[in-house]
Amino acid sequence: MKLSQLGEFGFIERIRRSVSPGEGVNLGIGDDCAATTLPPEQLLLTTTDLLIEEIHFRRQWTDFRLLGRKSVAVNVSDIAAMGGTPRHLYLALGIPPELSVEGLDAFVAGFLEAATEYGAALAGGDTCRSAGPIVISVTAEGAVPEGELVRRSGARPGDAVYVSGTLGDSALALQLLAAGKTPDPLLARRHHDPTARIGLGRALAAAGIPSAMIDLSDGLVADLGHILSASGAGAQLHEGALPLSGPFRQALAEDPGGIKLALTGGEDYELLFTVPPEKAAALSPLADSLSIPLTCIGTVTPSDDGLVVKDRDGRPYRPGWGGYNHFARPE
Amino acid sequence: MKLSQLGEFGFIERIRRSVSPGEGVNLGIGDDCAATTLPPEQLLLTTTDLLIEEIHFRRQWTDFRLLGRKSVAVNVSDIAAMGGTPRHLYLALGIPPELSVEGLDAFVAGFLEAATEYGAALAGGDTCRSAGPIVISVTAEGAVPEGELVRRSGARPGDAVYVSGTLGDSALALQLLAAGKTPDPLLARRHHDPTARIGLGRALAAAGIPSAMIDLSDGLVADLGHILSASGAGAQLHEGALPLSGPFRQALAEDPGGIKLALTGGEDYELLFTVPPEKAAALSPLADSLSIPLTCIGTVTPSDDGLVVKDRDGRPYRPGWGGYNHFARPE
Repeated sequence: MKLSQLGEFGFIERIRRSVSPGEGVNLGIGDDCAATTLPPEQLLLTTTDLLIEEIHFRRQWTDFRLLGRKSVAVNVSDIAAMGGTPRHLYLALGIPPELSVEGLDAFVAGFLEAATEYGAALAGGDTCRSAGPIVISVTAEGAVPEGELVRRSGARPGDAVYVSGTLGDSALALQLLAAGKTPDPLLARRHHDPTARIGLGRALAAAGIPSAMIDLSDGLVADLGHILSASGAGAQLHEGALPLSGPFRQALAEDPGGIKLALTGGEDYELLFTVPPEKAAALSPLADSLSIPLTCIGTVTPSDDGLVVKDRDGRPYRPGWGGYNHFARPE
Repeated sequence: MKLSQLGEFGFIERIRRSVSPGEGVNLGIGDDCAATTLPPEQLLLTTTDLLIEEIHFRRQWTDFRLLGRKSVAVNVSDIAAMGGTPRHLYLALGIPPELSVEGLDAFVAGFLEAATEYGAALAGGDTCRSAGPIVISVTAEGAVPEGELVRRSGARPGDAVYVSGTLGDSALALQLLAAGKTPDPLLARRHHDPTARIGLGRALAAAGIPSAMIDLSDGLVADLGHILSASGAGAQLHEGALPLSGPFRQALAEDPGGIKLALTGGEDYELLFTVPPEKAAALSPLADSLSIPLTCIGTVTPSDDGLVVKDRDGRPYRPGWGGYNHFARPE
């Protein structure tokens, strides 16, 4: 079926019927605004992301259900990075008229599936035609108890730098896809269906462990750069300490220069956080209870030192390229 | 200057520096999420809108500063329709790399100017490259005291149907622009720089007057249709009662069929609301105090009657075409 047969309001009605009422949603899809309530004594967290076809995804590589899941994950990942819990989602879609309703249905099904997994309700949105690319705009609202908000700006010299999960898998998958190859299933999943670390972010914040936290979307070096610039600090990272998956290690054995993907590749959606020395003891039981690997990859230093990476032979260098810049000129 | 010289983070930093801290914004631009607080005992209102070049605006007709202003107005207009007050705005931009920084600066200046006028703070956003059109995604959060929320669903037979301001000016301006003509300045302003009726919506809600309310974005017939379908009611409208501006009347004198623009033309951003008989007396002093014309254009009827329009000679007809449908096939 074509969207022109279903119509704009038919499509919205179709979505509305498949959404279950969310906690704290007084009024959901179908009015001028959603009306919601937050738990008492909690701050409202809000984040918005734009995903544009050809920039963030390509239709040829994209399963619409997974694209729906990923649209939620990349967005609520920002709420994880503040220590919060997602509550409400808003989805605005710009849709080329030739797109099939089946594709859209799969997208919405994936979106709602992921929303449920993260405990967030779709509470509103917008749909319109796009003359060009598919445009996906997602806004997430979450909540965090006052006093448990984790910012980017609290890292201090001497703090340890930690990262969850493994690094570079998504960027390696993208590199393989761009070269016309088929990535290993683990790599493909990490790229097409990333997991936002909501439980981890919340547990870290509730335990008061991180002095600063961010989610890895632009790449380790760039995102650590955001923490360092907000905190007025430098850092030293150790290449040898970076947590890498099996398939990533395999690729690295063939091309040792591929370590750059772990340092600067985007879209890991892991949490990067700094831990003051006095909080280190609390970290390990928490990591065990969540079964997510947490790896110390370096140390925060005074700001004059900048960001220094030590290679596997202990030789220091300054990583030049700070991750994805949407407006950079081709190198 | 080209955006490629400034870079993504340079552009965000430029915006951050020109934003003044907003009321209730604990943490604004520059972290993974904004963190905010609402006044106590108020519901959170959220609305999101997508504006895509070639669909919602054309670069050739568009002054970037006014486009920035309009992006805010169309979005907070939805908060007005619930009786709320805008608080925080989130702006996500998909930017073709060839766009000049001067154009973007003008857009942002217009956006921030309008935000200030409506008492809302820009608290976050996203920027990325677009391979095709300019993409503007705006999310607004507002607040409304519990118990003063006005929905679409409360209209009852016997209620009067009211509209603020005048109808069809924006659609007439668009029609003239599309025909290569220059619209009268009032019409042009109504199209390029509409005003969201925040003060009116808030005053109506605080006085408990409307049984249902919506803002006019899709056109009178379509938006009244939304109220009627949510309320399970019908309505009768009177063509002769529709409030029309001077320039619109002038155009109507030349082409009497142009009344269709007042009935179905989009983007008026006026408030359409229904008033139970017992509240009618409270309405007129309120309208006087705000100096916005409020006009009774019809009556709510039982749902079996559907929507009927009476023309200037009192002949009833059913308006067939319900306003803008983003996915309709060309007629």
